[in-house]
Amino acid sequence: MINGEKKIKQPIRWAMVGGGRGSQIGYIHRSSALRDHNFQLVAGVFDIDPVRGKDFGINIHVDPKRCYQDYQTLFREEAKREDGIQAVSIATPNGTHYEICKAALNANLHVVCEKPLCFTTKEAEELEALSKEKNRIVGITYGYSGHQAIEQARQMIENGDLGEIRIVNMQFAHGFHSEEIEVDNPSTKWRVDPKVVGMSYVLGDVGTHPLYLSEVMLPDMKIRKLLCTRQSFVKNRAPLEDNAYTIMEYDNGAVGTVWSSAVNAGSMHGQKIRVIGSKASIEWWDEQPNQLRYEIQGKPVQILERGMNYLYESALIEDRIGGGHPEGLFEAWSNLYTRFAEAMEAADEGKEYTGIWYPGIEAGVEGVRWVENCVRSANEGAVWVEYQ
Amino acid sequence: MINGEKKIKQPIRWAMVGGGRGSQIGYIHRSSALRDHNFQLVAGVFDIDPVRGKDFGINIHVDPKRCYQDYQTLFREEAKREDGIQAVSIATPNGTHYEICKAALNANLHVVCEKPLCFTTKEAEELEALSKEKNRIVGITYGYSGHQAIEQARQMIENGDLGEIRIVNMQFAHGFHSEEIEVDNPSTKWRVDPKVVGMSYVLGDVGTHPLYLSEVMLPDMKIRKLLCTRQSFVKNRAPLEDNAYTIMEYDNGAVGTVWSSAVNAGSMHGQKIRVIGSKASIEWWDEQPNQLRYEIQGKPVQILERGMNYLYESALIEDRIGGGHPEGLFEAWSNLYTRFAEAMEAADEGKEYTGIWYPGIEAGVEGVRWVENCVRSANEGAVWVEYQ
Amino acid sequence: MINGEKKIKQPIRWAMVGGGRGSQIGYIHRSSALRDHNFQLVAGVFDIDPVRGKDFGINIHVDPKRCYQDYQTLFREEAKREDGIQAVSIATPNGTHYEICKAALNANLHVVCEKPLCFTTKEAEELEALSKEKNRIVGITYGYSGHQAIEQARQMIENGDLGEIRIVNMQFAHGFHSEEIEVDNPSTKWRVDPKVVGMSYVLGDVGTHPLYLSEVMLPDMKIRKLLCTRQSFVKNRAPLEDNAYTIMEYDNGAVGTVWSSAVNAGSMHGQKIRVIGSKASIEWWDEQPNQLRYEIQGKPVQILERGMNYLYESALIEDRIGGGHPEGLFEAWSNLYTRFAEAMEAADEGKEYTGIWYPGIEAGVEGVRWVENCVRSANEGAVWVEYQ
Amino acid sequence: MINGEKKIKQPIRWAMVGGGRGSQIGYIHRSSALRDHNFQLVAGVFDIDPVRGKDFGINIHVDPKRCYQDYQTLFREEAKREDGIQAVSIATPNGTHYEICKAALNANLHVVCEKPLCFTTKEAEELEALSKEKNRIVGITYGYSGHQAIEQARQMIENGDLGEIRIVNMQFAHGFHSEEIEVDNPSTKWRVDPKVVGMSYVLGDVGTHPLYLSEVMLPDMKIRKLLCTRQSFVKNRAPLEDNAYTIMEYDNGAVGTVWSSAVNAGSMHGQKIRVIGSKASIEWWDEQPNQLRYEIQGKPVQILERGMNYLYESALIEDRIGGGHPEGLFEAWSNLYTRFAEAMEAADEGKEYTGIWYPGIEAGVEGVRWVENCVRSANEGAVWVEYQ
Ligand SMILES: NC(=O)c1ccc[n+]([C@@H]2O[C@H](COP(=O)([O-])OP(=O)(O)OC[C@H]3O[C@@H](n4cnc5c(N)ncnc54)[C@H](O)[C@@H]3O)[C@@H](O)[C@H]2O)c1
Ligand SMILES: NC(=O)c1ccc[n+]([C@@H]2O[C@H](COP(=O)([O-])OP(=O)(O)OC[C@H]3O[C@@H](n4cnc5c(N)ncnc54)[C@H](O)[C@@H]3O)[C@@H](O)[C@H]2O)c1
Ligand SMILES: NC(=O)c1ccc[n+]([C@@H]2O[C@H](COP(=O)([O-])OP(=O)(O)OC[C@H]3O[C@@H](n4cnc5c(N)ncnc54)[C@H](O)[C@@H]3O)[C@@H](O)[C@H]2O)c1
Ligand SMILES: NC(=O)c1ccc[n+]([C@@H]2O[C@H](COP(=O)([O-])OP(=O)(O)OC[C@H]3O[C@@H](n4cnc5c(N)ncnc54)[C@H](O)[C@@H]3O)[C@@H](O)[C@H]2O)c1
Repeated sequence: MINGEKKIKQPIRWAMVGGGRGSQIGYIHRSSALRDHNFQLVAGVFDIDPVRGKDFGINIHVDPKRCYQDYQTLFREEAKREDGIQAVSIATPNGTHYEICKAALNANLHVVCEKPLCFTTKEAEELEALSKEKNRIVGITYGYSGHQAIEQARQMIENGDLGEIRIVNMQFAHGFHSEEIEVDNPSTKWRVDPKVVGMSYVLGDVGTHPLYLSEVMLPDMKIRKLLCTRQSFVKNRAPLEDNAYTIMEYDNGAVGTVWSSAVNAGSMHGQKIRVIGSKASIEWWDEQPNQLRYEIQGKPVQILERGMNYLYESALIEDRIGGGHPEGLFEAWSNLYTRFAEAMEAADEGKEYTGIWYPGIEAGVEGVRWVENCVRSANEGAVWVEYQ
Repeated sequence: MINGEKKIKQPIRWAMVGGGRGSQIGYIHRSSALRDHNFQLVAGVFDIDPVRGKDFGINIHVDPKRCYQDYQTLFREEAKREDGIQAVSIATPNGTHYEICKAALNANLHVVCEKPLCFTTKEAEELEALSKEKNRIVGITYGYSGHQAIEQARQMIENGDLGEIRIVNMQFAHGFHSEEIEVDNPSTKWRVDPKVVGMSYVLGDVGTHPLYLSEVMLPDMKIRKLLCTRQSFVKNRAPLEDNAYTIMEYDNGAVGTVWSSAVNAGSMHGQKIRVIGSKASIEWWDEQPNQLRYEIQGKPVQILERGMNYLYESALIEDRIGGGHPEGLFEAWSNLYTRFAEAMEAADEGKEYTGIWYPGIEAGVEGVRWVENCVRSANEGAVWVEYQ
Repeated sequence: MINGEKKIKQPIRWAMVGGGRGSQIGYIHRSSALRDHNFQLVAGVFDIDPVRGKDFGINIHVDPKRCYQDYQTLFREEAKREDGIQAVSIATPNGTHYEICKAALNANLHVVCEKPLCFTTKEAEELEALSKEKNRIVGITYGYSGHQAIEQARQMIENGDLGEIRIVNMQFAHGFHSEEIEVDNPSTKWRVDPKVVGMSYVLGDVGTHPLYLSEVMLPDMKIRKLLCTRQSFVKNRAPLEDNAYTIMEYDNGAVGTVWSSAVNAGSMHGQKIRVIGSKASIEWWDEQPNQLRYEIQGKPVQILERGMNYLYESALIEDRIGGGHPEGLFEAWSNLYTRFAEAMEAADEGKEYTGIWYPGIEAGVEGVRWVENCVRSANEGAVWVEYQ
Repeated sequence: MINGEKKIKQPIRWAMVGGGRGSQIGYIHRSSALRDHNFQLVAGVFDIDPVRGKDFGINIHVDPKRCYQDYQTLFREEAKREDGIQAVSIATPNGTHYEICKAALNANLHVVCEKPLCFTTKEAEELEALSKEKNRIVGITYGYSGHQAIEQARQMIENGDLGEIRIVNMQFAHGFHSEEIEVDNPSTKWRVDPKVVGMSYVLGDVGTHPLYLSEVMLPDMKIRKLLCTRQSFVKNRAPLEDNAYTIMEYDNGAVGTVWSSAVNAGSMHGQKIRVIGSKASIEWWDEQPNQLRYEIQGKPVQILERGMNYLYESALIEDRIGGGHPEGLFEAWSNLYTRFAEAMEAADEGKEYTGIWYPGIEAGVEGVRWVENCVRSANEGAVWVEYQ
């Protein structure tokens, strides 16, 4: 049960790059990080426009002097202060993640980075090496993974409740970009511009989310090969896809699929994961995150509810309000930020982090790798490629 | 509104081959055919065991003298009678459909044949040619297509309610054969025996059902190429698959997927079809067949209900009980058998059938062709093959 | 498993009064009775208009000579025949049930009577006495009770799966008469005319349906007192109510509620029953009749599915198609008509009926009694009345 | 769209009484109040045990010197400071609300008080008068009302989307106290002790929640009379009820019902409200708070989703994350605390509050009054009583 009592000794002095006024994802970062005194927001470069960024910073109680004009200045100036920042979150468009993350690590900062970490496995592995060298945490905000049902699912699979895993079906298939709305919508515009997002749109933008859920649930299963076919139903988006199917073979003989889409007309998120074993299946849907379907072959389907005593203990420790009360995405992110804080504290103290798993640098690397493999397959004519 | 009043002038004198005591599917054939005086059950070879078959026939009020020992005798003897049968339904295991169907057509009988019609496109086309030559109807019992929601969906698509069609996702993925139950279960045993079912298990056994729904809804879209990967999670089933994914490209640039499975642990039928257009999507699930989801992008999801005035007229003519009252699979099959009867009458009178569509010989051919293409793709290493 | 094989030695020679062309409920009577060779439709007075009635009879294969002009003639003429009718179903508007039922019993016929049996407990008890004297079966078509989930629920309660029963919440609350549609709709017009329906509209028309489900599930619990408040939201319906709440106290200390409504705008049927015990609850909804929710306190909710092996044996014997396949209201009614036939045969043979329960004359009496008590309470100012 | 930018000029200096370690509801108060810089937690009496209370305060970053031993000291000492508290939240067991609230108002503090405000209408009206005299805000944490769907519902009704309102069905019926768990559970123990909770258990504890939702949605409808029947299924709880039904008549001829229960075995919250008009109904369920069912008679049911453009503007202003992303109870409470802050600021500045409605002192009074009337009715034998 989380009740707001401190989980770490001192709140971490923290800044944001991006996530300013009007941004989609900035608020949930702050709301989650600041919730339980694990972080303290003391500086930032909230906006590409420094004036608007400072004005925004003031409104969220950041010292105007510490609202900088760019991330380079932020890192440089804060490094000079005794009470300078210890960690930074990066919530800017995709094309900037690599350089900002690298600069932050070089400035000896812990990092929370938006997905995707960067565009190529090469870059990703470079960041991974750097973070190890510097002994700095890099957390990736695969926010849905913070829902308690995901840990419950992970435990059930580990405990063998499903039997041997055979099939993993995943999808994140919304309909919000069924039309060419990027013409008028800046937040969508950059998402379909290869210069900003690299070689893929929906694979990276949405597909990696359920993929990460599968990595959490099935840590021992490795993709051996995959095949991906992608389409641009809104023509002007080519070569970037707005719909894609990926089929994967795992090393243990299991198969998996991911449907990534932004043209699933009428659907809200459509993010689901179903893991099928020889004895039972579980299914989770991010729009009703407090429930987890548990379907044992030959038995009545069961609906597991967040916060109930019949869950595994590790799926209960982050409960904040008890069963029945709906927790939402903000609680999921808060759970991740709490784990990030604990991992950062451990790193600072030279201790090993013993808490619950979190999406770290390897998760960031893996997402990039998967997109790269998918694109390679798709570009070669939707053929099978060995997973590299 | 159907109320039992005759749809055709005289009930069709009708026999069954197969569908005897203990069979899975025999009762729904009889129940549907006999419901509204469109057929009259006068003869049959209900069982591979003639003694049990005759005993069964007596119990369902068939003249014992017309309970024959095999289909050859049935066709021969009935042909001699003035009041001999006019039509026959074939509900035997798959491996016998081709020969019985051919014999029935050669005996100048109308046929209702279980799916799959046969095992190869070559055979299927031969039966198609024969049925045309003889001017005999062949109906295929893709029973789910008789639900009124399917006609509603067809109309909505034809009317452009969904915009241009982009994606068709299909699945029939149950969990009843997650374990090797065929060891003890004869009705499952033949389903996984290549000698009886040909080159495929779930593709033909379940995948063709939603595929046919897509043919009804999207009559103008043709598959151009496809790719199929299949697995045998219960090892002894190899080379027959108990799970398969198929990806298809249509000639108009749309894509489609079919997930066919018998190892989707904990799932009942799991038969669903979702058609996604540029403006809206529809989704239908065979376990709740009285509802149809209609999701217009940017609008609240709507749940359409069977029997309500807001539906297209052709989706209401087969209503038997009014909205709210749940109709089930038996009504769906009854609708098909009624259409079969009307088509048979039209053929007999040399008139053109002007009623609502039904799964005819082309549907039988197409199902066989699709399985054949899937298997070819899978066997060549899950590669793309041109649809032949 | 029902497969159409005869359940009784000889089909019962059967007639209908009412249920003609355009009637709401006639077809489901015929469809259910005739389904499995338990009844044979040989005569009838299908319509208040004899000409239309005969024309209709011909179309459903009844001998024109046996399509009579009124029920008196039907009973008289059939009595003269050796192969005269043995049973009759009454599907006319409510105001005629009493007299037709009485006449039928006096003609030594078994009866299937639509609800309500009649208008007063006095009349009802008279019919009950008469049916006993004559040793004739009277079945009441509380059709929803034929769904297999109802028997499952009954068994679960009997077996103590719910613990001690505390609360029974019922509702049948549709929205089809939210406006004054009776102005144009004859099938609704008589329903709100006290001369035809007696002292109540929705209490009798819909409320008695879930009430009967509770009688099946809880045969030992007796209503001790009740309170009813009723409203006429469409003003011209007064004194007949289009909405009513009833609260009941049972002799064992349990409480129950019934919400009866025709003005629940936007709702289809809205027929539900929830039985709450000290350990668990069950809930059933007639629009999804193949599922039964089973909610054990402190455990995940379970969804029980029709046709599955984990159900009680008596909830499986009427399965016709296996789990997963949706059965509908027609199967529910067919189950009841089969039980009626078996009970009729037993009565004719002077044997005791040992089959599964069915809604018999007592159910008819009880429905009338309940409405009478509700109306009495409502008319006295919605006060508590002892249940008489 | 809320993004964390300040809504008021200066965060309000704020304290809590109750809500300490292990309490059920303390964390959501803090989490909501502190979220967006509208409040600053500077003092408190978090626990009945001052030592544990101070330890807790330290852990949530409150100055140890301002962790007081009782509320009297808190109010007295803070009054002496220039930077003393301006507002206090009361999250103690029910029996203490009246005195603490009164003391707070007398100390010129704004108050956020847990429900129920107190035990008698007389006390409640006294507090109301005092708050007016002092010009201090009293907010009541009917937290569910902060969900955006509630404002959407209110607007739809005001706009006439439902037609004339006829029926309001409410329930809050969980199953967590189906057994006598209070024997071992202190948080439940006081809830069934008349000395601590007054004359009612579930009516006050849960019934008032949906009742308040109805007050928001239907501000012009007044209860004219009501009838309540209550039961103690766990015997030792008598005279306090663990289940109750209330029927209400409104001045405009509409009727309403409330089912309050703690013995609805297997149910999580079971909090629902359905408002039925002459044209359409809406239904909302607190466990899936991001959806609102909109059922127009004769049209397909629509599922409205939080955060979507088709909602009324006032139902969108508190969106924090966009449609599809599930918001939870924490966001609902945050919305209320934001409104409280704005109302407090307005009061301090002598301005009229022009923001969105919030549960204020009248809501507190009304809840008490309703329970009082229910209990009066129940105690007189479940008879109709004029609403006083
Ligand atoms: N984890 C998730 O679920 C999730 C959800 C949405 C977005 N995202 C990711 O978050 C990132 C941001 O997405 P968004 O939708 O909030 O984008 P957005 O376009 O809505 O906002 C981007 C913000 O970054 C600022 N910015 C841009 N360049 C900057 C720079 N060089 N320095 C400082 N600030 C800069 C902009 O001014 C703006 O405030 C993307 O990488 C996206 O993929 C993740
Ligand atoms: N359309 C559908 O939804 C659906 C559903 C289930 C089965 N089926 C198809 O129906 C067919 C039968 O399947 P089932 O599950 O009922 O099989 P089953 O094994 O349960 O029953 C087969 C029946 O055919 C009889 N039979 C076998 N060989 C015969 C012969 N040579 N002559 C006469 N009778 C013979 C058997 O005695 C038995 O009564 C199969 O082709 C199957 O694919 C279709
Ligand atoms: N059990 C259920 O679920 C259910 C559902 C609907 C109706 N009902 C009951 O069924 C009965 C009929 O309802 P309906 O909706 O079908 O009514 P309806 O008005 O649609 O049809 C009544 C039929 O009875 C015929 N009829 C009327 N008087 C007759 C007479 N004296 N002799 C012969 N025929 C006569 C009419 O011509 C018509 O065909 C009612 O008692 C009703 O309460 C029961
Ligand atoms: N609005 C809602 O949805 C909601 C939900 C739950 C509880 N509540 C209400 O919140 C209140 C608290 O309920 P809870 O479930 O959190 O109770 P709880 O028993 O879990 O916690 C009560 C807390 O108050 C402290 N306390 C008790 N007396 C005190 C005093 N005199 N001074 C200071 N602290 C004191 C206790 O030490 C404890 O920390 C109740 O009035 C309850 O009705 C409201």
